[in-house]
Amino acid sequence: VTVSELGERALLARVIARLPRPAADVLVGPGDDAAVIAPGRNSRLVVTTDALVEGVHFSRRWCSPGDIGHKALAVNLSDLAAMGAKPRWALVSLAIPGAWAVSEIDALVDGLSEAARRFGVSVVGGNLTRSPAGLTVDVTAGGEVASRRWIARSGGRPGDELWVSGTIGGPAAALGALVEGGRSMVEAAGEHLAGVPALGAGLARHRRPEPRVRLGLALARNRAARAAMDLSDGLADAVRQVAAASGCGATICASALPIDAAARDWWMGRGQDAVVEALTGGDDYELLAAVPARWAGRLRAVRRQVADPALTRIGVLTRHPSIVLERRGGREVIPGGYEHFAS
Amino acid sequence: VTVSELGERALLARVIARLPRPAADVLVGPGDDAAVIAPGRNSRLVVTTDALVEGVHFSRRWCSPGDIGHKALAVNLSDLAAMGAKPRWALVSLAIPGAWAVSEIDALVDGLSEAARRFGVSVVGGNLTRSPAGLTVDVTAGGEVASRRWIARSGGRPGDELWVSGTIGGPAAALGALVEGGRSMVEAAGEHLAGVPALGAGLARHRRPEPRVRLGLALARNRAARAAMDLSDGLADAVRQVAAASGCGATICASALPIDAAARDWWMGRGQDAVVEALTGGDDYELLAAVPARWAGRLRAVRRQVADPALTRIGVLTRHPSIVLERRGGREVIPGGYEHFAS
Repeated sequence: VTVSELGERALLARVIARLPRPAADVLVGPGDDAAVIAPGRNSRLVVTTDALVEGVHFSRRWCSPGDIGHKALAVNLSDLAAMGAKPRWALVSLAIPGAWAVSEIDALVDGLSEAARRFGVSVVGGNLTRSPAGLTVDVTAGGEVASRRWIARSGGRPGDELWVSGTIGGPAAALGALVEGGRSMVEAAGEHLAGVPALGAGLARHRRPEPRVRLGLALARNRAARAAMDLSDGLADAVRQVAAASGCGATICASALPIDAAARDWWMGRGQDAVVEALTGGDDYELLAAVPARWAGRLRAVRRQVADPALTRIGVLTRHPSIVLERRGGREVIPGGYEHFAS
Repeated sequence: VTVSELGERALLARVIARLPRPAADVLVGPGDDAAVIAPGRNSRLVVTTDALVEGVHFSRRWCSPGDIGHKALAVNLSDLAAMGAKPRWALVSLAIPGAWAVSEIDALVDGLSEAARRFGVSVVGGNLTRSPAGLTVDVTAGGEVASRRWIARSGGRPGDELWVSGTIGGPAAALGALVEGGRSMVEAAGEHLAGVPALGAGLARHRRPEPRVRLGLALARNRAARAAMDLSDGLADAVRQVAAASGCGATICASALPIDAAARDWWMGRGQDAVVEALTGGDDYELLAAVPARWAGRLRAVRRQVADPALTRIGVLTRHPSIVLERRGGREVIPGGYEHFAS
């Protein structure tokens, strides 16, 4: 049954029926003109929106409908995590080509619902419309953070150390291998990802990125970061944005970067600059945090509370406004991040 | 300069610079991972999202970029008004074809900003991405309402009178005339809209619908409505939805319907059933409210506070679950509303 054949009302009822039950503080949930949520005392609402557009952010060749649903929510939760907020609710706006099978929309909603359940997010409403071209999934997420505990991009000061979570470059290398190899989603899901099976972990993170919600919460609750941002458009972009918003520059140490080992091997085997590729590739949903050296104790508390992902010190915010990469004893200007409008 | 040529960062800076300054309770505004807003004491956050998709909700032939920006916000404010909420903030997610001129995006943002200013809405963030096909504008709006004062669709009871604001059918008739006449936006903006200049008011409402924010607030503050909904998909659809959510049926009186006079003339001149067209046409951003007869005093208070638009009594909620149109002494089953996936 296609979306066109089923019709909007029946599709909406079907979508709502598949969503997890909203939390007790959701006073009006999906199906009304808007949702009503009672935030707790002394807490702050944090809201963000991010869209996934077919042909721009994902390809159906290597992302299943369930992957797309998961990712559409996860990229928003990653933004909330970067503010130190606890995710609470989401609105989901779908623009769907009429020829999509209803079972594919079911799978998309299931992928999103699974992520919502895992992170305690109530889907409180949304919107369905027809798309004349590809699928667009636009999610708005709301969260809470205690007064004066949120972490903006602009809080950094010269001398603050820059820390990044997890590894970088894995998803970008896996996508590069897929585009080059022209593998279908089914083939890519198997053992031999363009001849580099180790890139499978990066592909899994492209499909189902893990938002660093617990880490963001721990950074905020322990007051362990003065500024933070997620890496959706790459580490180079995040460093540039945090530095600019904080009125600083930054120096990054190439040898300290936690580049995914399989990604590094794949790029080096092709004669590419693994450091530049990993810095600019994007699609890493890790967190970048600016932490004064004297807050080391707070950061240790965070690391005790959240052992995974690991945190790596990669550089420092500087008084001088340029963004510099130190490697092989020299200094280079750091390359830019992913630009959605680049042609 | 096209969007592709300018690039994402420069476009984002340009968009943010054109937005009105956020209100004092917006603690973190556009440009960070998410926005932070401090809601007032004892108030409830109300959130909604609605998208405008090129080729589905609007045509650039008769909507300017400024119209599209206005409407993308207005349709969301209409949803908040239907809950009785005071609009406070919005997130704006734009998916833009790379070939659009930057000046067109400026005009779109200006149209949205003008509406935001007029209704006291802070644009607190959003998202920009490239679209491989047409323009999509996805807005999420948040508002506040006092505890236990919001108006859901489901609050109606058998015997409640149904009231509708303003007139219906004007935008649908104007669009019909435009599609038939094949007029360009520029021609249509002039005096001779497909030979029916009186439809110009309906076209203006299609382009720049007026969300009934003051009316919705007055209904909530005076506790004058037990259920309410906006008419975005037509009055027939709204009656059906309010009745179904309230576990009721409804009877509507055809002769009481406030059909736009020029629209009625245009449909009748073409041998069409003006009542059916006006009930099902959609694109009316008026409010439907269910009001017990004994609350007449409260409704009079609302009408004293908000003289424009007028309110018209059009029918009643019934114990029997069917949706009935009474006219010419007979009873008909009421036709359905606009379906976005209808092929």
